Amino acid sequence: MNTMRCIEIENPGKNSFLKIIDRSVPSPKTEEVLIKIHAAGVNRPDLIQRMGHYPPPEGVTDIPGLEVAGEIVDANNCEGFKSGDRVIALIAGGGYAEYCIAPIQQVLPLPKDDMPLTTAAAIPETFFTVWTNFFDSGKLEKGETVLIHGGSSGIGTTAIQMAKLYGCTVFTTAGTDDKCKACEKLGADTAINYKTQDFVEVLQGKGVDLVLDMVGGEYLKRNIECLAPFGHHVSIAALNGKNAEVDILQIMKKRLTLTGSTLRARSPEEKGVIKEALLKNIWPALQEEKIVPVIDSIYDFEEAEAAHQKMRDSTH
Amino acid sequence: MNTMRCIEIENPGKNSFLKIIDRSVPSPKTEEVLIKIHAAGVNRPDLIQRMGHYPPPEGVTDIPGLEVAGEIVDANNCEGFKSGDRVIALIAGGGYAEYCIAPIQQVLPLPKDDMPLTTAAAIPETFFTVWTNFFDSGKLEKGETVLIHGGSSGIGTTAIQMAKLYGCTVFTTAGTDDKCKACEKLGADTAINYKTQDFVEVLQGKGVDLVLDMVGGEYLKRNIECLAPFGHHVSIAALNGKNAEVDILQIMKKRLTLTGSTLRARSPEEKGVIKEALLKNIWPALQEEKIVPVIDSIYDFEEAEAAHQKMRDSTH
Repeated sequence: MNTMRCIEIENPGKNSFLKIIDRSVPSPKTEEVLIKIHAAGVNRPDLIQRMGHYPPPEGVTDIPGLEVAGEIVDANNCEGFKSGDRVIALIAGGGYAEYCIAPIQQVLPLPKDDMPLTTAAAIPETFFTVWTNFFDSGKLEKGETVLIHGGSSGIGTTAIQMAKLYGCTVFTTAGTDDKCKACEKLGADTAINYKTQDFVEVLQGKGVDLVLDMVGGEYLKRNIECLAPFGHHVSIAALNGKNAEVDILQIMKKRLTLTGSTLRARSPEEKGVIKEALLKNIWPALQEEKIVPVIDSIYDFEEAEAAHQKMRDSTH
Repeated sequence: MNTMRCIEIENPGKNSFLKIIDRSVPSPKTEEVLIKIHAAGVNRPDLIQRMGHYPPPEGVTDIPGLEVAGEIVDANNCEGFKSGDRVIALIAGGGYAEYCIAPIQQVLPLPKDDMPLTTAAAIPETFFTVWTNFFDSGKLEKGETVLIHGGSSGIGTTAIQMAKLYGCTVFTTAGTDDKCKACEKLGADTAINYKTQDFVEVLQGKGVDLVLDMVGGEYLKRNIECLAPFGHHVSIAALNGKNAEVDILQIMKKRLTLTGSTLRARSPEEKGVIKEALLKNIWPALQEEKIVPVIDSIYDFEEAEAAHQKMRDSTH
């Protein structure tokens, strides 16, 4: 157990590739455990990292991968954890490997004993992200109206279900009619095919209380048009560009709040607060299958490049 | 007391003019008092209203004027008020007249018995505005660092003093060296002449917690550059244009909050909450002259046009 297989990003940038190599198994520090990884989630930030744009925070491994499911093999005397625990973890890097370390504030039990680890591995990144952006940043309240872009993405499918759990009315956008149907099956009240419909027109006069946006660019101005008085706009990515135009008078007149965040750079303590909120508010819904993690595809360790290609093509 | 002199906006737009006419004295409704006006404040929104861009809220007189000082002449059975009370009031319109009505939630006692009414009349609009934008919108906390644009304006002089009262470090901008000196005399730690210096350069590496902005336009992006992690950007006007560019990744990485508001359209109940906060937190400072309302000039009723011209020229 001294060396492990892991995946390195070679030649970061447009011609980057993933390479399987051997490295030392990492050693957990205080308040960290060592996990034997059974499955790791693939997230869009992984693709951004291999382009050279989303470096790991200081002190974190350069191995990509932000979420894992597996088994604790060294509990490192951390209270409440023991070897053999089946867990999932949000990590700041290192998921594309046979082993990883995780701060205990970011390690959670499986929501259900019989949940496949390949399913459970898809939970941490999107559930932490959606929770903190809905409730900490977006001040979402029960029964409000939300607009979720990228409804068929990992974030989108999680956000739709979480919003419905809180009795919200959900508008969402996706790029094909099939994706829209999938969103409505998950509970979205209205799914808008953004390639054939203008979401601002569809939403005209509705007024949403929260926009969860990963598109950025020209969407920002249009999102603002859709917001109701006192609405919140939360940016979690800017896939169509970081530069956006806003109408200051609309922000003033509607008394809007525009905010955004990244998850990866936050401290374990801050992530721990989100973990506790998830365990209390969302784990029961996962147990009762009121919320179901949506998995597009499962790839073998050796197929990471193919998984990235699928996400790059947005065919998931 | 059936008719009064008041000032009407004629021909709203570029060729507007102010005309003194006679109208009926207004009648207070429930929870409103009638005030005989001794002095009224002149505010930039008055200039915008005569351009036809800032109409009074529904049900409010078209007579301009957002703040007055005077004497209650009809307390209208409102508890806690009696004829003869010397008061100041924030109103949604009607200040350019001999009499006005005011919701009791917006009527405050003079901070000091011996304060001239011409001074007191300058308090409501700026003090309500700065308070709510600093503390309700901007979540300002003691000892933080703020950037206040337009430091020598009514809003600016109030904001500088209020921020210093709360132990904040104050950066401000103004358009001449004399205005900068005046800002520093009021307590600003650093006043930046924006015509000769780039405030982003001056602030480089400082990181402010709050920007109070009435400039808008290209300032927004530059303000965002100056904000520290978790900083707040509060827009209260957009004198240089409502369309602004923002960098979404900066908002995300620094976890910024951009917001803004107008005051006039708010309900008397909401204004009443600000009034109570001012009475508790700011009136003692006005009594002890830790904060002093800054008056540029006093004009007679007949000289309203000259007062507007001075503000339009920004020579105040």
